[in-house]
Amino acid sequence: MNSFGKKFTITTFGESHGKALGCIVDGVPAGLKIDEEFIQSELDRRKPGKSKLETARKEDDQVEILSGTFEGLSTGTPIMMVIFNSNQKSRDYDNIKELFRPGHADFTYYHKYGIRDYRGGGRSSARETAARVAGGAIAKLMLKTIGIEISSGVCEVDGIKSKSYDFTYAKSSKLYALDPTVESEQERAILDAKDKHDSVGGVVLTIAKGVPIGLGEPLYYKLDAILAEAMMGINASKAVEIGDGVVSTHLKGSQNNDEITPNGFTTNHSGGILGGISNGDDIIVKTHFKPTPSIFQTQKTVTKENEATICELKGRHDPCVAIRGSIVCESMMALVLADMVLLNMGKKMEHIQSIYCK
Amino acid sequence: MNSFGKKFTITTFGESHGKALGCIVDGVPAGLKIDEEFIQSELDRRKPGKSKLETARKEDDQVEILSGTFEGLSTGTPIMMVIFNSNQKSRDYDNIKELFRPGHADFTYYHKYGIRDYRGGGRSSARETAARVAGGAIAKLMLKTIGIEISSGVCEVDGIKSKSYDFTYAKSSKLYALDPTVESEQERAILDAKDKHDSVGGVVLTIAKGVPIGLGEPLYYKLDAILAEAMMGINASKAVEIGDGVVSTHLKGSQNNDEITPNGFTTNHSGGILGGISNGDDIIVKTHFKPTPSIFQTQKTVTKENEATICELKGRHDPCVAIRGSIVCESMMALVLADMVLLNMGKKMEHIQSIYCK
Amino acid sequence: MNSFGKKFTITTFGESHGKALGCIVDGVPAGLKIDEEFIQSELDRRKPGKSKLETARKEDDQVEILSGTFEGLSTGTPIMMVIFNSNQKSRDYDNIKELFRPGHADFTYYHKYGIRDYRGGGRSSARETAARVAGGAIAKLMLKTIGIEISSGVCEVDGIKSKSYDFTYAKSSKLYALDPTVESEQERAILDAKDKHDSVGGVVLTIAKGVPIGLGEPLYYKLDAILAEAMMGINASKAVEIGDGVVSTHLKGSQNNDEITPNGFTTNHSGGILGGISNGDDIIVKTHFKPTPSIFQTQKTVTKENEATICELKGRHDPCVAIRGSIVCESMMALVLADMVLLNMGKKMEHIQSIYCK
Amino acid sequence: MNSFGKKFTITTFGESHGKALGCIVDGVPAGLKIDEEFIQSELDRRKPGKSKLETARKEDDQVEILSGTFEGLSTGTPIMMVIFNSNQKSRDYDNIKELFRPGHADFTYYHKYGIRDYRGGGRSSARETAARVAGGAIAKLMLKTIGIEISSGVCEVDGIKSKSYDFTYAKSSKLYALDPTVESEQERAILDAKDKHDSVGGVVLTIAKGVPIGLGEPLYYKLDAILAEAMMGINASKAVEIGDGVVSTHLKGSQNNDEITPNGFTTNHSGGILGGISNGDDIIVKTHFKPTPSIFQTQKTVTKENEATICELKGRHDPCVAIRGSIVCESMMALVLADMVLLNMGKKMEHIQSIYCK
Repeated sequence: MNSFGKKFTITTFGESHGKALGCIVDGVPAGLKIDEEFIQSELDRRKPGKSKLETARKEDDQVEILSGTFEGLSTGTPIMMVIFNSNQKSRDYDNIKELFRPGHADFTYYHKYGIRDYRGGGRSSARETAARVAGGAIAKLMLKTIGIEISSGVCEVDGIKSKSYDFTYAKSSKLYALDPTVESEQERAILDAKDKHDSVGGVVLTIAKGVPIGLGEPLYYKLDAILAEAMMGINASKAVEIGDGVVSTHLKGSQNNDEITPNGFTTNHSGGILGGISNGDDIIVKTHFKPTPSIFQTQKTVTKENEATICELKGRHDPCVAIRGSIVCESMMALVLADMVLLNMGKKMEHIQSIYCK
Repeated sequence: MNSFGKKFTITTFGESHGKALGCIVDGVPAGLKIDEEFIQSELDRRKPGKSKLETARKEDDQVEILSGTFEGLSTGTPIMMVIFNSNQKSRDYDNIKELFRPGHADFTYYHKYGIRDYRGGGRSSARETAARVAGGAIAKLMLKTIGIEISSGVCEVDGIKSKSYDFTYAKSSKLYALDPTVESEQERAILDAKDKHDSVGGVVLTIAKGVPIGLGEPLYYKLDAILAEAMMGINASKAVEIGDGVVSTHLKGSQNNDEITPNGFTTNHSGGILGGISNGDDIIVKTHFKPTPSIFQTQKTVTKENEATICELKGRHDPCVAIRGSIVCESMMALVLADMVLLNMGKKMEHIQSIYCK
Repeated sequence: MNSFGKKFTITTFGESHGKALGCIVDGVPAGLKIDEEFIQSELDRRKPGKSKLETARKEDDQVEILSGTFEGLSTGTPIMMVIFNSNQKSRDYDNIKELFRPGHADFTYYHKYGIRDYRGGGRSSARETAARVAGGAIAKLMLKTIGIEISSGVCEVDGIKSKSYDFTYAKSSKLYALDPTVESEQERAILDAKDKHDSVGGVVLTIAKGVPIGLGEPLYYKLDAILAEAMMGINASKAVEIGDGVVSTHLKGSQNNDEITPNGFTTNHSGGILGGISNGDDIIVKTHFKPTPSIFQTQKTVTKENEATICELKGRHDPCVAIRGSIVCESMMALVLADMVLLNMGKKMEHIQSIYCK
Repeated sequence: MNSFGKKFTITTFGESHGKALGCIVDGVPAGLKIDEEFIQSELDRRKPGKSKLETARKEDDQVEILSGTFEGLSTGTPIMMVIFNSNQKSRDYDNIKELFRPGHADFTYYHKYGIRDYRGGGRSSARETAARVAGGAIAKLMLKTIGIEISSGVCEVDGIKSKSYDFTYAKSSKLYALDPTVESEQERAILDAKDKHDSVGGVVLTIAKGVPIGLGEPLYYKLDAILAEAMMGINASKAVEIGDGVVSTHLKGSQNNDEITPNGFTTNHSGGILGGISNGDDIIVKTHFKPTPSIFQTQKTVTKENEATICELKGRHDPCVAIRGSIVCESMMALVLADMVLLNMGKKMEHIQSIYCK
């Protein structure tokens, strides 16, 4: 239940304020060049404290590979990556030890397990996504060898939508904004909310280019279904759309169908997926993040004994989780596609012949 | 890849115009009363041809149980259910044999597998959802014994939204409409599109009441993530929302957090799920269906040899798949919850004690 | 729990005296010629009543494919095969309804599930192995295309061991005997036991030729471990050996190691597996079957209420289950190898290149 | 493929001469007291260098828990345990870099993956079993709370069999010998072989007491089948027997059946398993280990370029792997039983009622 994927898999461990967190990546084909600098650079994109739009908590998120590589290459054995926690202020959480923070998983973890590591949310903290990014980085390395590239950016903050998408721009924007023309307005909305001890929601757009036709396993491991699972499983995510998504609901069939020509599809309403299988066009996914539940206003809640009390948070939190969420979306898409690349092998007899009958 | 679930599972088989379709339901606890009339009644809710809002194709969808029960009770062994196809007009498909229908899975199946059962879409046909409904019916029987009830209805057609939700009304509405005050407008939109040889999209709202706190397995089998997978995996689904979903993106944290009192949550923006685990409130999911890709207008497409051609469909098709989709959404939610009920057992030591130390 | 395999899988259903039994085979590559006559011929090898060495129960075991093929080829979708039961004499079991047969699963099923289909053992009956043979036949068809051939035979009956192995002879022997020189002695042992209302044990030797180097997934899906699981899971199996097995325990390392030359291994003590991975030599497995627990002597047992009683069986039973077990062993080995063939794809980067970079 | 179990699982990582090895244990119920001293003591039983019967390689095998516990209790989240390697003499392996050691996995890993970490066998080294022992220790802690105790010992060395079994004695014997009366003879056989630069085989007997009736999941996750998989998957294992195993093949049905009385079974030929489900009696498993392939004699082999050469090993190796293998067998049995304990929950409706209807 702490593993994701079927053939290219990650199994993650670790809590927000424990000794360390990390993951085991299994199923990586042998002979892949493992570029450790790239992996670290991906973690750097996710790490907190890079601007005032993010939590002030500082973590180096230095990743170390403990197994699975030899002379710079993957060996086909499990790759273990660990990140030791360094900047834990567990005392910040002493006052929430006995109560449940609204909008958080405190209440459900406590009731499910009968015990709760209250320090920073423990296992339910978004800090765990660092492990996803580490695993996703290896997935990206593999995908790159067959021409698949994944990008993402923030396409909406507090209801302020991007009018156009510039994925190259997003990379250098501290908001990972897709549209420079609305970026400052989006930034203002975040800082405004922060000033009012509040938080805002946002939407991340993630795309994959260069995806071959045929990825996705019918009928219960469809590409769109697994992307939905992957994105909805990210902390604070509340909705996922594929291609035109919600908008396609308002179209007629004649408007929404992507016609086909010898040069490819004329449009891409479908987001590159038909019948749960990639059609060769860009894969397009939108992930909607709710406003950060950690706000610095007084909220009603109950204690572990179910007595009414007041929740007043301390600590350091992102005012808009969608920002750092964008790199997590990329990582999850990479993990899904890497898995699908492996699963698709052997789906037709000519694959079998090409591997075994040389 | 044709199985869904981890402990309460269905494995389905069958194509639109093959001999039969059905499923094996595995993991059903022994001693459950298997009410065959209820299972058939669920299939009757999904079966086509009940009104002019649906395809004119008529299928009895008579289900037969071939294994797994004894003297009316489940025995803990796999329950196999089969539905023989009776109303196949394969000739309707002769003209699409060599080409790919826009908006359909023809193109992707052909390229993935190198072979395609073109009759009615073969395995990619929504006819397969009959197997999901049969499996979901057994899940519902199990869930009922612990007080969980699932309902659904159509909350939007062609952009016309329900203003209120009446799940009891939906049951008897031929549109499965949740709001009688907009039902005739929604119906008109469907028939209008049908007259123009076109189709419309729609949205299904599915809820579960009586769900205990604690269902959902962190971190990669979260309740919301698996519901998203389940719903996105239904034919023609393009977006999934949990609770307030897209709307929560536009709220502030102070508006979106559900405060807690000794009597429960004051609101349910979260849709009954926190940190991927049920919180005891109603589970709320919205599934967005694109307009039916089968339309009776001329469309550009290519042949299997990638030559430009024109697609002109014959046959019988639903003008709005969301209608019959609503019972499929219910079934998928039932399958997810039944699985989560079983998976949650053994999550704390007191479960172990209560089963093994009597 | 009623599925076997990870990528090439079977999910079986059905009880001894239910309406039908069968399986869904999933993961079969598209484009495989599905030779229905061959599948039936495999079932014919397993079916009962072919000689007085077997149970007198007669079953046609006529298999029908309900899905997954089109114009004689697999389509990549699940292949469903069903065998309807025709020769049920449920009344034979009325007298054991309230008690547990020694050596059978009656006792454990009843206590595990609290309910038991007592007719012929229900789901625990070896009749279920017909489904394995049907699935194994499709696995064999796939393996044959890459040159893998599986054979088996009985190498020991009631302690009487074969001195040499002739797999071609075994095919036509009614005892599936590997050594014609001891066959009549083995046959006598069986008939002797039968006359005394008793039963005997036996051992099956199964080999695969033409297996490429590299099948088997370290560390928890090793080829030898999964073969052991597969064989130990067959009804009445009590021991499994790989290669020299028990005998290798008595050798010195210098005797047991298979030395390597440019032309291959000089010996095959290992049974073709090193470190859980095939080494290109023949895969060799021995499966030990206990004497049939169904004997026609008076035995002590208890009722469902745990009161002492006497068990006196009626009905028709194999005096030596190893005979018909041999084809089941072949089928299980075929299922394991087919799965390993698919799983091995993608284990090195050059596989990825050869499929995706053309 | 580096994970074992379905609900109580371990995922292991690490190579013989890498930085570290360890495992993630997932599925541990929340609220289990995690006795770290016990875990370390189990590792101490397995660690090398305790006597001249074992390899002289010295490893502290100091285990550290990095996640999953809080205030001494499991929290229901993944428990990560790491053991850093400290005593690596990688230079010992320089001379085998270009060739394959007979009897080892060098040949198969190289051909499967196209790359090989030659230092000490890399991932194929039995050093990985330390991770199994760490995971098994947590399984034992859980099993102990419901009265299940697992023991093991060496019952045969180089063909010299124990005449009686004393599991308490075995614990303190440096050979883990079950029979003190043959221990010195067994020891002599080992030292003799060692003097001759050779190695011997051995057999481990493992039993579990206090196992409730009902563990084991039909039909493809049977208790005996999964025990067979678990034991056969241990390095150097070549045969597995359940209960009387090979011997039962030579008995008549009337001798082999365990009769039943109101006070239980009169005998335990079955090894406590009927139909793949525990019957309440002791679970009995024998695991046969081949002689250590690492011997210090000259052996024929080939280079990576398939040229004939000679293999001459250096380094330090166990002359009889069965000795330290015995604790690994215990650990694997513990992992299997812990998994089965969890999987069995929910198999009858009364379980569901007892957890959810209070």
